Amino acid sequence: MLTGLKVIAPASVSNLACGFDILGLALDYPGDEIVGRWTETPGVHIAELTGFKKDIPLDPEQNIACVTARALLKHLGEENRGLELKIKKHIPAGSGLGSSASSACAAAVLVNELLGRPLERRELIPFAMEGEILASGTPVGDNIVASMIGGLVLVRDITTLDFHRIYMPPGLFVAVLLPDVPIHTKSARAQLKPDVSLPMMVRQNANLGAFVMGMQNSDLELIRRSMKDLVIEPQRSHQVPHFYDVQRAAVDLGALGCSISGAGPAIFALCQEKLQAENILAAMQQVYTDHKLEALCFVAGINREGVLKK
Amino acid sequence: MLTGLKVIAPASVSNLACGFDILGLALDYPGDEIVGRWTETPGVHIAELTGFKKDIPLDPEQNIACVTARALLKHLGEENRGLELKIKKHIPAGSGLGSSASSACAAAVLVNELLGRPLERRELIPFAMEGEILASGTPVGDNIVASMIGGLVLVRDITTLDFHRIYMPPGLFVAVLLPDVPIHTKSARAQLKPDVSLPMMVRQNANLGAFVMGMQNSDLELIRRSMKDLVIEPQRSHQVPHFYDVQRAAVDLGALGCSISGAGPAIFALCQEKLQAENILAAMQQVYTDHKLEALCFVAGINREGVLKK
Repeated sequence: MLTGLKVIAPASVSNLACGFDILGLALDYPGDEIVGRWTETPGVHIAELTGFKKDIPLDPEQNIACVTARALLKHLGEENRGLELKIKKHIPAGSGLGSSASSACAAAVLVNELLGRPLERRELIPFAMEGEILASGTPVGDNIVASMIGGLVLVRDITTLDFHRIYMPPGLFVAVLLPDVPIHTKSARAQLKPDVSLPMMVRQNANLGAFVMGMQNSDLELIRRSMKDLVIEPQRSHQVPHFYDVQRAAVDLGALGCSISGAGPAIFALCQEKLQAENILAAMQQVYTDHKLEALCFVAGINREGVLKK
Repeated sequence: MLTGLKVIAPASVSNLACGFDILGLALDYPGDEIVGRWTETPGVHIAELTGFKKDIPLDPEQNIACVTARALLKHLGEENRGLELKIKKHIPAGSGLGSSASSACAAAVLVNELLGRPLERRELIPFAMEGEILASGTPVGDNIVASMIGGLVLVRDITTLDFHRIYMPPGLFVAVLLPDVPIHTKSARAQLKPDVSLPMMVRQNANLGAFVMGMQNSDLELIRRSMKDLVIEPQRSHQVPHFYDVQRAAVDLGALGCSISGAGPAIFALCQEKLQAENILAAMQQVYTDHKLEALCFVAGINREGVLKK
């Protein structure tokens, strides 16, 4: 193959307020792009890294896409192949939007496609996880599963690939404000309190169960009541400048829910339709403008297909 | 009215392994019966108490049915009525099968019916809760909601009546083994550890979300994987003689799940159909027979209507 193959793996919102380490939602924008082609030189190499390059290692031992590609090649008995990757990062590292998961999923799908698709999408997940563990330190699969298969997913147990697509009512959009404050997933996780009070666990649990029911029954008001994070958000909000002001702006304009995506600092608002999402985004952005703070702001729809092959 | 009106409120299994203080399931057997009629003497009185009378106070200030009836009569401006109750307890107190919730629900429906049904079923719940709080010490609504409306319910927030009926695949039965070891709900609750580790919370949370999906999608294998209690069961199992042997007997014969109902000591096994439930019950009971221990054993179907008027 001369020209190479291009794949795009979507960004994802994780936790979704009530589902810490369990829920993931794939966005139709942005997504990391990888173009790959076989080369004569054995091993996986990065030929080009563009886009949000900051904090992305070029060392193949440290780069998530390379680690994933190598793990999959090895599993398929193709470890002597030479593979050259051109990576275009559209998702900043340390954003809370599944940047590492996206690169890992893109690399796994790319290798699988280059080899004539020997594996199913779900079978690629353990290899993408190998890359993801580099970034997060723990095998949490919410971003990986969302980016790989798309849609809204619940991960019961990533080690046994026990994950499930949750039905979502059509037409939902997400407004995202990404402050210019990088957060390192591993240390963000280490800072969380080790325990939760039993009553808090019950309330968080009840919200997750109700959220699943709300989605499956298209009960938007139930979704709205359930998208509350009593456990993690209070511990992370201080790392996200003016988080509560942004959240209030979104909720006041009717967002179904607004919280920190993953370890942050991205703030997401789940919205009923596109125009509402644009209005909500403007109000969220205004908070940052008022404080003369920089943020990347965008509205995204839901990616329902996972990694796309171009 | 001369002859009186009779209502039967179902027993219920609560927690269902993965939904501590959130899930309730109404059984079509047994149920507490109350016959009520207006009398000349103002106030709520117990004219007769039969069945499992042990630990059921006759004092109207302490009796759950009386407290509930009085609260509802007062709310409806009928506090000067005289009401006489004949209570037949089919559910032992301190069983973990929602005995107090059943009596409370029966009393609330009885009064409502005697007055020509001024309130909807859901509107009766706060009055049944007043009785239930006497027994449990905290406003947990899982048994109350299940007994009042029937079926499998998720309680997001009882204080705002935010509860939901979860679809269940048809044909499920429950095998129940009730050891002769009374447990007091209030003290059982006080003995629970105040905190849960974050990873345990996540796993319990994931199981609850997956359980809801499993039920709504009739995915029995997902229900089976999800009906695990990592938090409460290990803390209560020592109070239920030979719990793990009984659980293993049920699981080995294919029970979808087996755990302690509520604060116990009742052990329930959710089964795919009636014959399986009978076989599982026999195996559970054999454990107790082998140890020369007494237990009340029965198979129940699902009550889908809540409190029944006869």
